[in-house]
Amino acid sequence: MNDVHDMSCSVAATAELIGSKWTPLIVHDLSEGPRRFTQLEHACPGISPRTLSERLHMLQEEGIVIRRSYPESPPRVEYELTVKGRAVLPIINAMRRFGRSWLVAAPAEAPVAAAARH
Amino acid sequence: MNDVHDMSCSVAATAELIGSKWTPLIVHDLSEGPRRFTQLEHACPGISPRTLSERLHMLQEEGIVIRRSYPESPPRVEYELTVKGRAVLPIINAMRRFGRSWLVAAPAEAPVAAAARH
Repeated sequence: MNDVHDMSCSVAATAELIGSKWTPLIVHDLSEGPRRFTQLEHACPGISPRTLSERLHMLQEEGIVIRRSYPESPPRVEYELTVKGRAVLPIINAMRRFGRSWLVAAPAEAPVAAAARH
Repeated sequence: MNDVHDMSCSVAATAELIGSKWTPLIVHDLSEGPRRFTQLEHACPGISPRTLSERLHMLQEEGIVIRRSYPESPPRVEYELTVKGRAVLPIINAMRRFGRSWLVAAPAEAPVAAAARH
């Protein structure tokens, strides 16, 4: 029972943290290095600035992301993964592998189909 | 750009599929073998029968879960993971590891604390 309960807590808490739309994409993009707001917007095609702002706020509160502000002219603000944030990456990688294998078209097919249309 | 797009699609589609509350817990419980409805209810403490029913429906539509009905008396119905469903397990395992390390109390402490109370 303790194991089941522990399992429930661990998985449910993680799902609550990273289950919301866009969050896995934001974390993945940050895995490649610090990013500005506009760079993250490009990594999440279709996200509204308001939603991105909310997600970044939540991720900061949860200790996944840190916001750094540099006193330059114009001021530069960047977002970066914390150590806890980097610990999320194995989940994102597992999601990507599953998605590639089972949910989206095989990546090798896409360029061929695109070329055939032109 | 194609890589980014492919990454977005894979992760976003997976998040949509398993991001909803309870779904990772249901999939984890089914990883241990076929389960009846009431067994799954126990594995998801607090879930309503209606929500469990909805999740199982969605998982069947997505090809993650198969429902088997045995013509016994009383009739027996069991749910089981498909091959696609088993491919979700690496994600669930990664979520559990993250949750254990970063979100819930260390499992080793729980039994000690419980024993101290009695």
